[in-house]
Amino acid sequence: MSSPGENTLRIDGPRLWSTIMRSAEVGPGVAGGLRRLALSDSDKEIRDIFRDWCEAAGLPVTVDRLGNMFARREGQEPGLPPVMIGSHLDTQIAGGRFDGIVGVLAGLEIARTLNDRGVQTRRPIEIVNWSNEEGARFAPPMSASSVFAGVNNLAWGLGRTDAEGVTFGAELNRIGYAGPLPVGGRDIDAYFELHIEQGPILDQAKIPVGVVTGSYAVRGFVTDVIGETSHAGPTPMAARKNALVGAAMIAVGVNDIGWKYSPDGKSTVTRIENWPNLVGIVPSRAQVTVDMRHPDLETVKQMGAEFMALLEDVRKRANVETAIAEDWSYGAEGFDESCVALVRDAANALGHENMDILSQAGHDAFNMARVTPTAMIFCPCTDGITHNEAENCLAEDVFPSVDVLMHAVLNRANRL
Amino acid sequence: MSSPGENTLRIDGPRLWSTIMRSAEVGPGVAGGLRRLALSDSDKEIRDIFRDWCEAAGLPVTVDRLGNMFARREGQEPGLPPVMIGSHLDTQIAGGRFDGIVGVLAGLEIARTLNDRGVQTRRPIEIVNWSNEEGARFAPPMSASSVFAGVNNLAWGLGRTDAEGVTFGAELNRIGYAGPLPVGGRDIDAYFELHIEQGPILDQAKIPVGVVTGSYAVRGFVTDVIGETSHAGPTPMAARKNALVGAAMIAVGVNDIGWKYSPDGKSTVTRIENWPNLVGIVPSRAQVTVDMRHPDLETVKQMGAEFMALLEDVRKRANVETAIAEDWSYGAEGFDESCVALVRDAANALGHENMDILSQAGHDAFNMARVTPTAMIFCPCTDGITHNEAENCLAEDVFPSVDVLMHAVLNRANRL
Repeated sequence: MSSPGENTLRIDGPRLWSTIMRSAEVGPGVAGGLRRLALSDSDKEIRDIFRDWCEAAGLPVTVDRLGNMFARREGQEPGLPPVMIGSHLDTQIAGGRFDGIVGVLAGLEIARTLNDRGVQTRRPIEIVNWSNEEGARFAPPMSASSVFAGVNNLAWGLGRTDAEGVTFGAELNRIGYAGPLPVGGRDIDAYFELHIEQGPILDQAKIPVGVVTGSYAVRGFVTDVIGETSHAGPTPMAARKNALVGAAMIAVGVNDIGWKYSPDGKSTVTRIENWPNLVGIVPSRAQVTVDMRHPDLETVKQMGAEFMALLEDVRKRANVETAIAEDWSYGAEGFDESCVALVRDAANALGHENMDILSQAGHDAFNMARVTPTAMIFCPCTDGITHNEAENCLAEDVFPSVDVLMHAVLNRANRL
Repeated sequence: MSSPGENTLRIDGPRLWSTIMRSAEVGPGVAGGLRRLALSDSDKEIRDIFRDWCEAAGLPVTVDRLGNMFARREGQEPGLPPVMIGSHLDTQIAGGRFDGIVGVLAGLEIARTLNDRGVQTRRPIEIVNWSNEEGARFAPPMSASSVFAGVNNLAWGLGRTDAEGVTFGAELNRIGYAGPLPVGGRDIDAYFELHIEQGPILDQAKIPVGVVTGSYAVRGFVTDVIGETSHAGPTPMAARKNALVGAAMIAVGVNDIGWKYSPDGKSTVTRIENWPNLVGIVPSRAQVTVDMRHPDLETVKQMGAEFMALLEDVRKRANVETAIAEDWSYGAEGFDESCVALVRDAANALGHENMDILSQAGHDAFNMARVTPTAMIFCPCTDGITHNEAENCLAEDVFPSVDVLMHAVLNRANRL
């Protein structure tokens, strides 16, 4: 469906790169990366800049009640549902300059390129900046896209709290990004997301384009361990109900499960809380957050069953009680075959070496896949390092994927 | 050395009990106990009340630069060094109504009783309320008495910070208890401390008076575990340096050491910190606080050596580095034999069944033992429960020990 001129259409790499580098100045970390937590002052700053960029490119920006931002490039048939390009501008507490950011700014660069070349599309294109993808400040991750996709409701999204007990809704008001649009509930033609791989596969293989066919299956558990407080001096070992011992046994056991299913499987205790966490006191309560991943859904279910058996064992060995406070699962479903094919075909048409790949991290795309045909593209990141200020991408790692994204979106937006 | 009338001298039990119960109203917890953290508003409130009580009993109160309070009952020979009775009025975050408090208020009751009966002593008697014994807000415990005893210096004591980074010195100024007196550096004739046992031995044996001959040997370590942050999804198990796995292995191993030396030995990880402690992130750094106790000094040294071997093992198994950030040892030295004998003799003279016992917890008395002849008395507490809002003492558990304390102090204060 491309018009003849489109076959030679390429993004302006240096312009994209300077846009990414300007973003990298907003909310600097301490080691060359970014600390741009959701709804922080620096998140407001990059949102303001992003809106200015979009408006300068002729794209009006609307904002929904969770602060998700939509920059619209009108189509020849404005009544048709838009093709969306999206990702996120927030970062981890010690995050990188590319994670999420490349995906949003790639959308902007595509719109700029289409403007430069006077390319019109049948359907509108919308570039989305999802609020709070990282979940580093307001757990869980991907909260705003999950409401957009109807997985959670608006009150839930507004009520997320940070470590100080401040709500998402209050902070959204504070930074002026509580928009008027309802969250979701409208037709989207398709959703495309470009993201850095966040793993070493493409970088090691020296392949510039990953055609993401789906994701690892992910299981998560927040588990409470309940013991009893006492004095660490006089209380005999046999009289103790030490919650931290239980939590530690869980952390070790969860790691063992990961090794059992290595290299494809991963299993991690990422978070731990301990009460009262004081010198001289046997801990009365602890909480651990468990993250298990494997490409195969049945295997991740088996890992979850082994985790349950571990809990039973820990209850006996540590003389504690346990309770699952929260659990979740996502991924394991493939993306839309026709959208994935558009990505693969675009890469091949442009002559970029590419490979099929599974996402091992969570992305807003997994929420969007519930409500619209969805595909993702990965670009390499150096050594697969991410969620770390040392995260890096080379320009030549990024540009091919953005061209692929542009052509896949054009083909989708122009289809009859 | 007692005068004839002193043989019938007994404290006013109901008065002491009502004083303890008035204290129990200041800084209530959520489950019947106290939350009266050092230098909090409720600590200021009980300090004000304690000062009023002392002044009403004719005891002028002076305060040193760390907020330690000294209520002085003058002796017939004011130039002689005083005999001190002391403990602490601060509590754990979810603490009891008796821990420390009984010891301070026993001193007050003794002064009141001596006043009632017109008993003079050769040496002055001073009742001390030590600041921040618990260390629940400003680590470590017993910080102010450690400066008094010259173990640490004043700047160190003022510079202790709470979890919000507020310094001890700033909070002391805020509550108006930064006094003018230098900390320590003066002659003390002897130091006596009455404390609840914080263990079940006296309660189970139904013996009202514990003659504390010394303490368990205690070793402590704050240990950093250094790994590397990465994404919990894509990062293969073999590429990880998961600091929390290392910390968890330490917590489990430390517990195993405790069991190996059970029932006399105890070994506990009481505190854990984990960075960045976020969902989806492999932890880069963790810190554990380790507490090891045994009545025998050589054995606790052996437990410490096993801990070092554990660290070596953990470094290999978890692919992390470790570093000891802080370590301490205390106890293991006996109290002053003549002062201990005064306690034992007083108990026998008063007809109170008593037994020799070792302290398993840390007390300001261990700091004081470095600079003056020192002894301690334990009274029973129900089921040995302490550092817990359910901590309880019966009046009949407390009164015998206070009489014993009074007669031991009288004999010491009146000796030629």
